[in-house]
Amino acid sequence: MATHQNVPAGAGVDPGAAQPLVHRHVSFLSDYGLDDEFVGVVHSVLKALAPGVDVIDITHGIAPHDLRGGALALARSVQYMCPGVVLAVVDPGVGTDRRPVAVEVGDGSSVLIGPDNGLLAPAVSMVGGATRAVVLDNTEHHLEAPGPTFDGRDVFAPVAALVCRGMDLADLGTEIDPVSLLPGTLALSRLEADGLHAEVLWVDRFGNVQLNVDPEELDAMGPGVGGVFGLSFHGRSTFARRVGAFGSLSTGELGLIIDSYGLIAVVADQASAAEETGLSAGEEVVLAASRTATVGGPDTTGSEVPVELGGTRSHRGRGSSTDPVDLEGRG
Amino acid sequence: MATHQNVPAGAGVDPGAAQPLVHRHVSFLSDYGLDDEFVGVVHSVLKALAPGVDVIDITHGIAPHDLRGGALALARSVQYMCPGVVLAVVDPGVGTDRRPVAVEVGDGSSVLIGPDNGLLAPAVSMVGGATRAVVLDNTEHHLEAPGPTFDGRDVFAPVAALVCRGMDLADLGTEIDPVSLLPGTLALSRLEADGLHAEVLWVDRFGNVQLNVDPEELDAMGPGVGGVFGLSFHGRSTFARRVGAFGSLSTGELGLIIDSYGLIAVVADQASAAEETGLSAGEEVVLAASRTATVGGPDTTGSEVPVELGGTRSHRGRGSSTDPVDLEGRG
Amino acid sequence: MATHQNVPAGAGVDPGAAQPLVHRHVSFLSDYGLDDEFVGVVHSVLKALAPGVDVIDITHGIAPHDLRGGALALARSVQYMCPGVVLAVVDPGVGTDRRPVAVEVGDGSSVLIGPDNGLLAPAVSMVGGATRAVVLDNTEHHLEAPGPTFDGRDVFAPVAALVCRGMDLADLGTEIDPVSLLPGTLALSRLEADGLHAEVLWVDRFGNVQLNVDPEELDAMGPGVGGVFGLSFHGRSTFARRVGAFGSLSTGELGLIIDSYGLIAVVADQASAAEETGLSAGEEVVLAASRTATVGGPDTTGSEVPVELGGTRSHRGRGSSTDPVDLEGRG
Repeated sequence: MATHQNVPAGAGVDPGAAQPLVHRHVSFLSDYGLDDEFVGVVHSVLKALAPGVDVIDITHGIAPHDLRGGALALARSVQYMCPGVVLAVVDPGVGTDRRPVAVEVGDGSSVLIGPDNGLLAPAVSMVGGATRAVVLDNTEHHLEAPGPTFDGRDVFAPVAALVCRGMDLADLGTEIDPVSLLPGTLALSRLEADGLHAEVLWVDRFGNVQLNVDPEELDAMGPGVGGVFGLSFHGRSTFARRVGAFGSLSTGELGLIIDSYGLIAVVADQASAAEETGLSAGEEVVLAASRTATVGGPDTTGSEVPVELGGTRSHRGRGSSTDPVDLEGRG
Repeated sequence: MATHQNVPAGAGVDPGAAQPLVHRHVSFLSDYGLDDEFVGVVHSVLKALAPGVDVIDITHGIAPHDLRGGALALARSVQYMCPGVVLAVVDPGVGTDRRPVAVEVGDGSSVLIGPDNGLLAPAVSMVGGATRAVVLDNTEHHLEAPGPTFDGRDVFAPVAALVCRGMDLADLGTEIDPVSLLPGTLALSRLEADGLHAEVLWVDRFGNVQLNVDPEELDAMGPGVGGVFGLSFHGRSTFARRVGAFGSLSTGELGLIIDSYGLIAVVADQASAAEETGLSAGEEVVLAASRTATVGGPDTTGSEVPVELGGTRSHRGRGSSTDPVDLEGRG
Repeated sequence: MATHQNVPAGAGVDPGAAQPLVHRHVSFLSDYGLDDEFVGVVHSVLKALAPGVDVIDITHGIAPHDLRGGALALARSVQYMCPGVVLAVVDPGVGTDRRPVAVEVGDGSSVLIGPDNGLLAPAVSMVGGATRAVVLDNTEHHLEAPGPTFDGRDVFAPVAALVCRGMDLADLGTEIDPVSLLPGTLALSRLEADGLHAEVLWVDRFGNVQLNVDPEELDAMGPGVGGVFGLSFHGRSTFARRVGAFGSLSTGELGLIIDSYGLIAVVADQASAAEETGLSAGEEVVLAASRTATVGGPDTTGSEVPVELGGTRSHRGRGSSTDPVDLEGRG
């Protein structure tokens, strides 16, 4: 507005005179939600300091402080993002000594900016790893903050704007070894006597339940009778059938589908598999190929799932560099 | 990002070198919600493939799989949209053989892109009907999809970007007769002995209850005593008064107002008529002009509404080409 | 779209031929929510009438008709906004004789547009007061409205677009004395025998409870034992400790922090202070410096908070022109 007492010189530019930008796009993810003005204020700071920048909201619906959910959403999205700056803020440690960082990938084609708390790590890994990193300790580029709780506005947004305008990372703070960045962690599925122990990575708006399971892992368990697999969770057992489309399922039937990120998801047709199963992110599901036809409908709560796994399963062939689950470089 | 392994050639363009666009605007409506990254990823693909495109989010709050709600929201909005591309995705049949389509209107001034499941039909009709249509079966223009569940990202967004860049519909797939597009359906109100049987089209955020009723239909029922009409629904009866502004209503009183789309809505002043009535989309309401003054306040649950309709009501004068209810060409 | 029957001449411009804009940015706040198409339609009208304009959504999550919440969010944001047009719509009186206005600040550097119902007043005050104001009674610049309930689309958006294109306020309607604009009102905190009586201004998404209390007001009450203050509300008493970061608090402990707008907020670490206290906007909290160590944990519901305030407290040093609470020019 008229005064901009908080925005450093450069904010009050002629609106018609956008400077050429080195990066045009800022892809922005946070747990800010949309009910408050947090997201709008960050947009404002970005556009005041880097006129002409285009901000793409990846999502701001990460649950408050849900680092794991934020890191996974960022990792799922990153391969589709426009080259440029990625601004990611899920930051329960704001105001403590957790480090604010900028992480260069692809030799400068993109820069990820946010707290060094594991949020960025899976995405950085997805796009080939960091080529350079700095701690954002040059405070002359930050906004003067009335209080220490909104680094998205006061630290990360102005730095993102400056990177868009071409400022080198070296001017933003002290260079650090990318190896020192806090890694993310993701559970691997593991094969045990009773089946494949998987974890729910994500429940989306439609109630699809994404598991940390590749299609090849299901294949290795054998087709099962009629493509049906047993699912065990919460002390109950039920069935799900491998299908190629939601529409192939009957009402009330659970399916296993290859989802839009190439992972196995538990789904239902025009209904929420999460509601039908009660599953939520982080919970365990055990999958086993069915060796008998299902009787009595898809849900046989409390019954035993007949399982006999055919042979040993090795962790082969899951480690392609673009495999969205393979975020930690496991082989 | 750096790799873009899923984005076809053209994505990794110089961010400063946006090509001239034939269409600058993509108006985007979906049932994706904002809690996941779906919307952000579609924006990313659009902007990676058509740098400089401006994406206008109409809404992503359509209830999951709610084709009717999506079609109505699109029809309400379409007359206000910027010329260009309309991307609409409510797609319960994703992965089945429902057809992905692009529909040209106004001899090419705009193109609507989405599934051929009735979602687009009312909007297409609102703006004068299709002049050309294709099935999007030229898969070379789609993204390589890890799974079949996110055509918004993998099919519709890249096609929308290419249309913005000037690709002719003929290059996107097989031309089809627009008559073969799945039509939408909307209930007409109908006059019976006990009054005008209407349907709730939409309950908005403020709890306003839009009916498929034109002001002229109310006029034809006579003014009622004090402009009061009887409303019957859910086996109960109450009253509502015709007013020109929310502020003309007393606390607790229901009103009938000409809403922002020219239809009759049941409303309350700074309160939710939907909450007070319990009405939701798709339900029936019977309206009748009151012939006696209301006694005992606006709500007389269970009482009889005195009704005597004055003369026959004909379906005259409702069929102007811009009448938002007149989506199916009824005359 | 193709027809634009409601959009005045100028809408159907060549998408490649954006006119030079006097204001590039429209910062937009409302209580429209994102579940309906209201926000998208306003964006569409803005961009149809002022091609090239950049719309920044501050928030649309203001509770329906919550003038106070909207005015506070606008006041918090305004100092960070890009110069240009501010479009703010929380408008329970739409269709009545409340005045639609445009208010110029900073001698024309920015223009705030919305209903004259107190919504704009605190923000206008924050940025130095109005230098000019008009009632938007020149209806030739409005859209033809099917009904009187959506002035955001039919009045405010087209006017905002025209201001972006350089139209002088005098062409939009009748000039009025800015003094006649409806002021906003905010409760001041007040010192009484039992402590500082404060009001909850805002509960944000994270459950942080912002009070109308400056840090200096807490300082004036003395440090308390261990920086602990007593909090009384809802007939119960508990404690909160002054901290510099959320992370300095133990699980279950309440803190007092200087929030991102420079006011005191009641907070918890990775938890919602609003949930723990049950506090919501507009409610009263009494703060008092603790003179004894807290015993038995942070919450001692029903116990007395030992208080003895050290000396008189004057209202000194709170009136800087950028103090976000100092919206009414109190000294």
